[in-house]
Amino acid sequence: MQKIKIGLIRVVSFENKKLIGLHGKLIEEYFPCLQLISRCIKNQPKGIFDEESEKMAIPKVIGLGLKIEKEEKVKAIIVSCAADPGVKELRKLLKIPVIGAGSSVAALSLSYGDKVGTFGITEQAPTIMREILGKHLVAEARPEAINTTLDLMTDKGKRNTLKSVKYLKAKGSEVIALACTGYSTIGIANDLEKEVGIPVLDAVIAAGLFAWHFTRGSI
Amino acid sequence: MQKIKIGLIRVVSFENKKLIGLHGKLIEEYFPCLQLISRCIKNQPKGIFDEESEKMAIPKVIGLGLKIEKEEKVKAIIVSCAADPGVKELRKLLKIPVIGAGSSVAALSLSYGDKVGTFGITEQAPTIMREILGKHLVAEARPEAINTTLDLMTDKGKRNTLKSVKYLKAKGSEVIALACTGYSTIGIANDLEKEVGIPVLDAVIAAGLFAWHFTRGSI
Repeated sequence: MQKIKIGLIRVVSFENKKLIGLHGKLIEEYFPCLQLISRCIKNQPKGIFDEESEKMAIPKVIGLGLKIEKEEKVKAIIVSCAADPGVKELRKLLKIPVIGAGSSVAALSLSYGDKVGTFGITEQAPTIMREILGKHLVAEARPEAINTTLDLMTDKGKRNTLKSVKYLKAKGSEVIALACTGYSTIGIANDLEKEVGIPVLDAVIAAGLFAWHFTRGSI
Repeated sequence: MQKIKIGLIRVVSFENKKLIGLHGKLIEEYFPCLQLISRCIKNQPKGIFDEESEKMAIPKVIGLGLKIEKEEKVKAIIVSCAADPGVKELRKLLKIPVIGAGSSVAALSLSYGDKVGTFGITEQAPTIMREILGKHLVAEARPEAINTTLDLMTDKGKRNTLKSVKYLKAKGSEVIALACTGYSTIGIANDLEKEVGIPVLDAVIAAGLFAWHFTRGSI
């Protein structure tokens, strides 16, 4: 089977090839007809964590997007960050679909329910997600006492995470959109979904779904 | 291969079984692992065309949704109308995903682009679509001198349709969401897309995509 090539941009500067390819592998598991070409931006080992780091990342994402498209002849590009850095800009420069993880998970949640809760790593969900969700956004949460996604793996981290997700449900959320792709790296969507009893949507899988849909039949 | 059963509600009272099953067949072509069980509401041969007819349809959609779920053990229900009649209500009554064609095509368009145009059969897109698109909705159109989707098949109808779609692109739309499932019946999305050069998204296919995604692995 000839696979459809999709570019994937990580906004954390990993050295480790396995880490660079992790989101791509996740998408390939769900969509075996896709082949993900993963690259990461340079000199941002901590990724995007505030406005300043997002501003720094945008031109790098744009440059990398143009490079992947040219060199690898991919049929679509995924920007694997819930803040969609560089997505609007790349769409203006490229003819292929440019899919952002943030807009994807927000869009996917609106197809399922009228009331959406977001679970991020910062106080608020990224602007693009808040914009798309609009009045359908009923609550936002982040786990308490967490600094990085690694902290989520501890027992205390897991308890705090579950508490936050239950709060989102109590606020009326019919579906929860994960507002950070760091959660994809540790794969908590399914675990949370089982615990809380409403769908918990992973931003990387959401981006994979749309990349798959918009490139079907493009070979 | 065991197929996943999905209920599909048509909001036009057709007598002809082929017509009743047409949207379901369309989804099965795109998603061969799904089996669509199509039913239509009673005593509305003209379907939903204004506020009054929408109000009349809602309790019928709810009743039919509950009946299909009970009798057919479907894994999700699609309401195949761009106004999403009864979708919010059914979501409160059922545990399975309830997918509306209007919210689906609006959501799908937001995964692709920041600026969305809608092409409906009425002056404005249905409320649910306008709500979801929010400020991302840059233009709305309908073909001129058209009363039913059948009029679209004439040469004059085709010319007028293309004119409207070009207007949406000129207004800055990066993607066009079809705001009436009557367009799915005649399958114009692909034709318009080729002519206008930006994606034209079919509301029934969009609903099929999300029904497929949310029921994957549910057998």
